Amino acid sequence: MLSKNQIKQIQSLQLKKIRDTEKLFIAEGVKSVLEIVETRPTQLKELYATAAFIEKNRSAIKSISTPVIEINEEELKKISLQSAPNQVLAVCHYFPKAMTPPDFESGFYLYLDDVRDPGNLGTIIRLADWFGVSTVFCSPGSCDFYNPKVIQSTMGAFLRVNVVFVELKTLINNYPIRAIYGAVLDGKNIYRESLQNGLVIIGNEANGINSENLHYINRPITIPANHNNGTESLNAAMATSIICSEFFRQLRAG
Amino acid sequence: MLSKNQIKQIQSLQLKKIRDTEKLFIAEGVKSVLEIVETRPTQLKELYATAAFIEKNRSAIKSISTPVIEINEEELKKISLQSAPNQVLAVCHYFPKAMTPPDFESGFYLYLDDVRDPGNLGTIIRLADWFGVSTVFCSPGSCDFYNPKVIQSTMGAFLRVNVVFVELKTLINNYPIRAIYGAVLDGKNIYRESLQNGLVIIGNEANGINSENLHYINRPITIPANHNNGTESLNAAMATSIICSEFFRQLRAG
Repeated sequence: MLSKNQIKQIQSLQLKKIRDTEKLFIAEGVKSVLEIVETRPTQLKELYATAAFIEKNRSAIKSISTPVIEINEEELKKISLQSAPNQVLAVCHYFPKAMTPPDFESGFYLYLDDVRDPGNLGTIIRLADWFGVSTVFCSPGSCDFYNPKVIQSTMGAFLRVNVVFVELKTLINNYPIRAIYGAVLDGKNIYRESLQNGLVIIGNEANGINSENLHYINRPITIPANHNNGTESLNAAMATSIICSEFFRQLRAG
Repeated sequence: MLSKNQIKQIQSLQLKKIRDTEKLFIAEGVKSVLEIVETRPTQLKELYATAAFIEKNRSAIKSISTPVIEINEEELKKISLQSAPNQVLAVCHYFPKAMTPPDFESGFYLYLDDVRDPGNLGTIIRLADWFGVSTVFCSPGSCDFYNPKVIQSTMGAFLRVNVVFVELKTLINNYPIRAIYGAVLDGKNIYRESLQNGLVIIGNEANGINSENLHYINRPITIPANHNNGTESLNAAMATSIICSEFFRQLRAG
């Protein structure tokens, strides 16, 4: 049985401040947790699982050295952030920060300029995974990667896509990037541009790309609308999915 | 001041059963409500607005015959579904069911086969508006169009896109549709197909397209992934945004 103190400790990981101090985060659900067990077992600190999960995944659990704490559905509800918790919750160590150096000549990358909504960030990471974008760079003002809602909405893609928080200026000073795209209202029709590998900047949900970052853009692009009838913008995740799709089509699958 | 009874009546419109009986739904927020005032004033039954909204929009309000009930922020909170209510809430009549007949030879249309999440449905309607898809057909098992979360997440696009609930079989029996696309796992690479006007079927979030509808598809398509590394699917709204973008690119903006 979980003590009140244990429950509190796990719940406290919903707060960024506590996560950053403890260097711990939460991943939930059968699919995500089994993927961590398989591909990143050393990230696991503790596993809280129902009897049903333990019964069904005996051999997977045996392969790891992490303590597995059996809990009942009611206890899971208490520590879970999901409205419908799914059998298992893992407390994990932050990922080591080693990063494969990006190569802006041979791949296209995303830079999220203050994307704040956890659902949007998670969706964009999932999308990056789908289209083979190896690293998603985020401005320091973007939503925290270890936010449980981000982890959840990546559907496991957080294990495969590098997410690096860095100022755009620093990134550009450290790496030569020839093509820097930005989705802006008066950009060129993305479908008619001959897209190249490089960096694509995606702006904040409400305010777009920060003014101090706009001048780095040397290839302004836009997603044309059918007519100007009122829909003023696509949301950040939709726009990113369309942009990634078009880069992928032109550069990889064309 | 709102009576308890008034508050209850408005809150009850969160339930589909009540909405369908009363033929009433809720739209919230300055932008959506002003757009209804401008483009569909006869849909309005009552307007609940703060003093600030009334002050700022005197002339718009004057143009309509709808009763405007002044309420304070606290009352707005009680009747609103938003975590941060935005000045005004409208109780509206269901839209008349007149539909511009679709022409599957000169436009592309969507059929949502049991898309259940209100956020997904709303996002798809917004997307349809952006890319000029005039009608979104929905299976009877899809999420209710008048669900407040749907209305909210369309960001006003619910006023411009026709949403029609109909069995796929009925639709196909009533209209000649040459090209019926469906997003399926073993479909053809959407980027390499020469897409045509017609109907695109989008499946349920968890189960894809219903088995009884699969055989209507004569152009199976798929969004290729970079590699088969674990991300099993894109979510319904992301997939739809990519598909609509590619149809739009080939047929309208290419």
